Amino acid sequence: MHALGNDYIVINEFDGEKVKNKEEFSKKVCRRRFSIGADGVIFIQKPSSNNYDVKFRIFNSDGSEAEMCGNGIRCFSKYVYERILKKNPLKVETKAGLRVCELEVEDDRVKKIRVYMGKPSFKCKDIPVKSEKEEFINERAELKNPYLKEVNITAVSVGNPHAIIFVDDLEKIREHLDVIGSEIENLPIFPERINVHFVKVLNDKEIKILTWERGVGYTMACGTGATASAVVSNRLGFTKDKVLVHLDGGDLEIEIKDDGAYMKGDAVMVYDGVMFREAYEG
Amino acid sequence: MHALGNDYIVINEFDGEKVKNKEEFSKKVCRRRFSIGADGVIFIQKPSSNNYDVKFRIFNSDGSEAEMCGNGIRCFSKYVYERILKKNPLKVETKAGLRVCELEVEDDRVKKIRVYMGKPSFKCKDIPVKSEKEEFINERAELKNPYLKEVNITAVSVGNPHAIIFVDDLEKIREHLDVIGSEIENLPIFPERINVHFVKVLNDKEIKILTWERGVGYTMACGTGATASAVVSNRLGFTKDKVLVHLDGGDLEIEIKDDGAYMKGDAVMVYDGVMFREAYEG
Repeated sequence: MHALGNDYIVINEFDGEKVKNKEEFSKKVCRRRFSIGADGVIFIQKPSSNNYDVKFRIFNSDGSEAEMCGNGIRCFSKYVYERILKKNPLKVETKAGLRVCELEVEDDRVKKIRVYMGKPSFKCKDIPVKSEKEEFINERAELKNPYLKEVNITAVSVGNPHAIIFVDDLEKIREHLDVIGSEIENLPIFPERINVHFVKVLNDKEIKILTWERGVGYTMACGTGATASAVVSNRLGFTKDKVLVHLDGGDLEIEIKDDGAYMKGDAVMVYDGVMFREAYEG
Repeated sequence: MHALGNDYIVINEFDGEKVKNKEEFSKKVCRRRFSIGADGVIFIQKPSSNNYDVKFRIFNSDGSEAEMCGNGIRCFSKYVYERILKKNPLKVETKAGLRVCELEVEDDRVKKIRVYMGKPSFKCKDIPVKSEKEEFINERAELKNPYLKEVNITAVSVGNPHAIIFVDDLEKIREHLDVIGSEIENLPIFPERINVHFVKVLNDKEIKILTWERGVGYTMACGTGATASAVVSNRLGFTKDKVLVHLDGGDLEIEIKDDGAYMKGDAVMVYDGVMFREAYEG
């Protein structure tokens, strides 16, 4: 399955047999070209208590287990509703706690999935940002690279740290994204480094973003980044509380409410597969 | 399926339904992350005459049709033998003519496939190389990059042009392969550019190669390149007529006979899959 170009192998352990060594398994089957190839493996399991309908676990291609993943949980929810449990909304147990997923269903197919993304924080100590101010809103920072000499940054946490920078011309930034992105990611004011998003406001209901992911580099789609960009656009008065975010991998709709932010987007089933032992062991 | 990390979607049109627009289909399904993802699509078809057992067609991920592909035809042969026709050797119709594939079978599984690679040519006009000499054997060339100032090149054609360079330390070349490889690829003496292989001779039966593919860049496995490297190693007296070639993607065995070169290697079935219409049309 994929969601905005983040691709996952989804394994049903709710009804089916369990994979024993998930770390090793994920590393092997995620290897592109030599095996199935994916960003990660999602396991669907029975929940640990009646507070949940189903349990979500996700392993990255390096074998590490992640707590949550916005693109992954949309794939997961579609699979669960279409093949395992016709529940809507779906109460999902994750390592980051309960996530309620609301499904838009047409002819028994899940078209879109809406996920609560938590309450964003602008507090410097939450993000974190090294600053004497309480919040880091539209603050000027000087850069050393030859392509972009200074930027205005707003920092926000959506569980992880994001630096939002509004620009007129995304394509000009894109040409030198590796240089500019990595300089901002590593600015000394961000002690845990930061995800960097360049945002162009199209109108008060639409933005387009270009993302540099901390520790990764350029990425086509980042759910928390889309959420952070929409939250900051709203806070600075550029957009209303519902905004369509255009990412390179596709679109997400973000809604900001009193209790926090909600992200809505689709997920796609690409194929059903049966893997051969010779490929797994080979 | 994959062969040395070149991965292909294999479609049975011998028994099954035919794909109508193969160019468009291949472009769509080869797209990594958003679809199945592969280097190309192989179609298994009925042959056009009784001179052949089966017909091989291969489309690249950009939608273009290729004449032949050493890694692709090994995947093809394994699939055909295990699932369609228990013939060995297998007479395969390709756009480049007849290719006879000899199969090493154990318990009805194809372990290795041996393919005739044609008769190599050292003639400058065949390769082509701009030179007054008839052949271009161990000729010194001066380079402008700061990492490797001069090299001794032997050029050979195995259907396509190859420049073979013997070195002691492949890892030193690897660090700057993009700079060095692209300079040699584009030397004015090679009017149609050239594939570049750095070869370390391990003993008279084994070599290790590092490949820069014309128009592509670094690649883990190149069947014609392995063949060219073995042929040149043999010609210069470094190896005998049977040589094991270690590539980054895996191993190939090359045998040089009077009628030309033979390549032997494996192929792996990774998974059987059924694709969803929503992923194809989406």
